[in-house]
Amino acid sequence: MTAATASTARRAARPAARPARASKGELTRAQILGAAVEQASASGFESLTIGTLAERTGLSKSGLFAHFGSKLELQLAALDEAARQFTEAVFLPALKAPRGLKRLRALFEGWISWPHRAHLPGGCPLDAASREYQHQPGPMRDAIVERQRQLDRELRKTIQLAIETGELAPRTDPPQLVFELLGIMLMLPRTELVFGRDEACRRARQAFGRLIERHSA
Amino acid sequence: MTAATASTARRAARPAARPARASKGELTRAQILGAAVEQASASGFESLTIGTLAERTGLSKSGLFAHFGSKLELQLAALDEAARQFTEAVFLPALKAPRGLKRLRALFEGWISWPHRAHLPGGCPLDAASREYQHQPGPMRDAIVERQRQLDRELRKTIQLAIETGELAPRTDPPQLVFELLGIMLMLPRTELVFGRDEACRRARQAFGRLIERHSA
Repeated sequence: MTAATASTARRAARPAARPARASKGELTRAQILGAAVEQASASGFESLTIGTLAERTGLSKSGLFAHFGSKLELQLAALDEAARQFTEAVFLPALKAPRGLKRLRALFEGWISWPHRAHLPGGCPLDAASREYQHQPGPMRDAIVERQRQLDRELRKTIQLAIETGELAPRTDPPQLVFELLGIMLMLPRTELVFGRDEACRRARQAFGRLIERHSA
Repeated sequence: MTAATASTARRAARPAARPARASKGELTRAQILGAAVEQASASGFESLTIGTLAERTGLSKSGLFAHFGSKLELQLAALDEAARQFTEAVFLPALKAPRGLKRLRALFEGWISWPHRAHLPGGCPLDAASREYQHQPGPMRDAIVERQRQLDRELRKTIQLAIETGELAPRTDPPQLVFELLGIMLMLPRTELVFGRDEACRRARQAFGRLIERHSA
């Protein structure tokens, strides 16, 4: 992702809080974070160091240090940036669909195409981070758990709305549906690796369709 | 994979074929591979180097080199060992259950408890490997894809038997059921991270129960 892309992306996500023109410093920061998310997607967040990012972006180490004082600060900022990209590319567009099943479907379709649309070579960086820090207590794991909880809350809310519109059955258990929905998402990269992208998307859509059918009112 | 590695793994997987007393060299090799699988589970297969393994096992680097000539050879052998442990701890015990749903259930129960029983700190090392090498072509990725294909074949076979016993409906699509079953497995560590082990197992059992119910004859 180029600096301009990242900057445009940030403006689109939080229009009110941003100046009309990004400063040079903001553009550089966005460029670094874009590269950091790509690298984390392919090689994990532990691969993010001031040194590797300096090499990747062509900036000096001291330039990197001016933006991020430590490896941890860089990692946490990259995690925030990945979550922001996901929100912007998957959640916000789905909010344009009417509440209920249409929104849930829009979310699903946006989600399965996201890593490819975003040129994230190793799939969803947040999934990668969950695996990576699962058994490494510390600020990164805390931040990931908080992000995952947030995702769960948003998904439960979307499902709850589909119960309220009468499209999903009142007996639907939102946390259980979230569990099964996320299972489909986690299977996408694995199936793509073994059987290719077409089969992965086909299997995921079929699983999603059955899941919704089972919970339909 | 070297011929010797494959041969050792095969011998270990079928106790009848093992010699009554393992040689000192075999014991050392088994000790190194046990440590390698634990480390790969927690920190990924890329963390496996002759140096880190020497430190972990207290052996000399030259001692390690005598068993594994390169980092790649060590990584491939660790992958084989993880697969062998999984087969031994999850698949073989399930084969003692009668073919059909009982065997599928035994497989599921053995599987969800495996990483804890095996003291694998970061969950299933084969899942970790799939993520890690997804976008890194090479011998490790080829070996992982082959392992995953093998797992799919075994699961399809188990499901096919449950169709033949008349417990699962004839319209059941084994590859689709495998996809949805593996999705539950992949959600276990993620749910454990965010909500704890009890909730993870409860959600997984509920999802599995519904999956089977939907496909019951």
